Amino acid sequence: MKIDGKPFRSVWLDADGYSIRIFDQTKLPWAVEELVLSDEEQVAHAIRSMQVRGAPLIGAVGAYGLAMALRRDPSIENLERMAAMLNETRPTAVNLKWALDRICAAVRNHPPERRADAAYAEAAAICDDDVETNRRIGQHGLELLQEIAARKPAGEPVRVLTHCNAGWIATVDFGTALSPIYQAHDLGLDVHVWVDETRPRNQGAALTAWELGAHGVPHTLVADNAGGHLMQRGLVDIVLVGTDRVTRQGDVANKIGTYLKALAARDNNVPFWVALPHSTLDMKVRDGLSEIPIEERSGTEVTDATGRLPDGSVVTVRVAAEGTPAANPAFDVTPARLVTGLITERGRCEASEAGLAGLYPEKA
Amino acid sequence: MKIDGKPFRSVWLDADGYSIRIFDQTKLPWAVEELVLSDEEQVAHAIRSMQVRGAPLIGAVGAYGLAMALRRDPSIENLERMAAMLNETRPTAVNLKWALDRICAAVRNHPPERRADAAYAEAAAICDDDVETNRRIGQHGLELLQEIAARKPAGEPVRVLTHCNAGWIATVDFGTALSPIYQAHDLGLDVHVWVDETRPRNQGAALTAWELGAHGVPHTLVADNAGGHLMQRGLVDIVLVGTDRVTRQGDVANKIGTYLKALAARDNNVPFWVALPHSTLDMKVRDGLSEIPIEERSGTEVTDATGRLPDGSVVTVRVAAEGTPAANPAFDVTPARLVTGLITERGRCEASEAGLAGLYPEKA
Repeated sequence: MKIDGKPFRSVWLDADGYSIRIFDQTKLPWAVEELVLSDEEQVAHAIRSMQVRGAPLIGAVGAYGLAMALRRDPSIENLERMAAMLNETRPTAVNLKWALDRICAAVRNHPPERRADAAYAEAAAICDDDVETNRRIGQHGLELLQEIAARKPAGEPVRVLTHCNAGWIATVDFGTALSPIYQAHDLGLDVHVWVDETRPRNQGAALTAWELGAHGVPHTLVADNAGGHLMQRGLVDIVLVGTDRVTRQGDVANKIGTYLKALAARDNNVPFWVALPHSTLDMKVRDGLSEIPIEERSGTEVTDATGRLPDGSVVTVRVAAEGTPAANPAFDVTPARLVTGLITERGRCEASEAGLAGLYPEKA
Repeated sequence: MKIDGKPFRSVWLDADGYSIRIFDQTKLPWAVEELVLSDEEQVAHAIRSMQVRGAPLIGAVGAYGLAMALRRDPSIENLERMAAMLNETRPTAVNLKWALDRICAAVRNHPPERRADAAYAEAAAICDDDVETNRRIGQHGLELLQEIAARKPAGEPVRVLTHCNAGWIATVDFGTALSPIYQAHDLGLDVHVWVDETRPRNQGAALTAWELGAHGVPHTLVADNAGGHLMQRGLVDIVLVGTDRVTRQGDVANKIGTYLKALAARDNNVPFWVALPHSTLDMKVRDGLSEIPIEERSGTEVTDATGRLPDGSVVTVRVAAEGTPAANPAFDVTPARLVTGLITERGRCEASEAGLAGLYPEKA
């Protein structure tokens, strides 16, 4: 998408033909800084330190890291050792493993001198595939927004509420939940986005608000507490969120707080849709509440907040009383019964085993 | 309640016999500083600048301010002018007007030289009445906690979730929603409190966590997003909150985000109780959703956060992308259908017209 009118992806090949460029997401939204990553160690560091984040983007960047490793040593031994090293940088990110496996499979049967080129080609294909997947998710979600727009009085925007960041900087481009919004906006549809702050890591305030603003999509930041009130007052037409994992029966694991918004949507007859690529489906898991382990992160994310001082420096402050114990479950599970539907690259479906089997018969 | 073992109220008469002492709540939780207020201008400033906050406490402090004004000029003209001046400091705080009216009524029929003494006596009575009201709320809420404890396996604490600050520092003592918790803890009942951060002003992280910690009540801070997840996992036995206004039919206006917790409580069969003194009942209003205007506060409360740097200085940082528009509705309305019951100084009742008429026949 665009930053101040100029189109970007979240990762792209540098002019030198072997390095990649990314945005240092630890600096966003306070500074937009491009970083050049030229070898697998730099890539590993970028993933570990969350300079890149978002499952699809991590996969794409990791794939390029493996290609870089093969430039110096194209042996199968090095391929496997570096794939393992890169996979260790974010061991729970299922997309990273998937992308590294894809590179390994693509290069293994080439002679050593062709492997690096083959790996770069496959990494580029991974990026293009991600963009195409997200573009299609956006197309299918766009129809929802157009249907809502058709029912609204002229001059009223379609008001979307979103939680966390499922935007283009979490992917190679377009994003998942934000893809329909970008496509609607680019077609001239009047859309407005309520952006949940998304404590404790503030991905909404820091990332979603930034990328919507940079592309020019009208939006308003609200505290996570505000969504229910907005829905009660008729100020939300649809909730659109991404997800970290969708189970066989359509339960949705996503950033902590998503479940509360789904409850409010149900209570106010607001449609609640979840956008996902096929890679997020986990057909091995049925009941999200009993089967998905929830990551417990450091309590300091809750007791602290990071922001910019008037002098421009970025600091972390303690917002809670000193010595306050804190708990920090990072995700919650929204049961399928609260989900109006799923938006995938193959179309829309009910959040149910039957709905998913209809779109993904090969996984059923 | 106690601060590190020493009992305090939130406002008390200074040794000089005419000044009052308060805690500067703008400094909490980073510093516990007593302030001496010796005349009505200092009192007005303390209310305006939110050095004192919480409807019952504002009323009590305002009452003392009016008594101070009468020390220098006990005329009825000055009484009325100063009552109006003090009332203007927080025009929407219904308790302030009520307390100032109570002082006016108490002194009007005394000769001028007796009026200041009468006003101080009445202000002291307002404080004692507030403490007694809150103590009774706590007694009635305590029964609920004891009933839950009796049903739980031995060794498991009663786990309460609360939102915002309805604690002793919002009142003269005990608080409303926290009063049952303090009384349970002081009786040796094993209670644990999940404290919602309560963005955007962080009253949970800054005030509730502080006062529970200072009194020694076990508690854990969580992001506002976490409550639904905790209830899904069976980690919350009861939700206890305060309120800014309860309508004739039992609708509850309270800090933004309360409605989301009520929805989660309903979805998980967790009892959701609201604690209030009689002064919070507004029998003139029936339907909270259509009739209660919701204060819209500055968006900078959402884009910014205040906290302490490692060097001890307290600063405000911008947590959102620069230029992000923000909306900040300060309260929401929880419909009576989601409220398990109300806890008042007269006992517990259903959140309904019939329930309230049973406890308050004189208001029905």
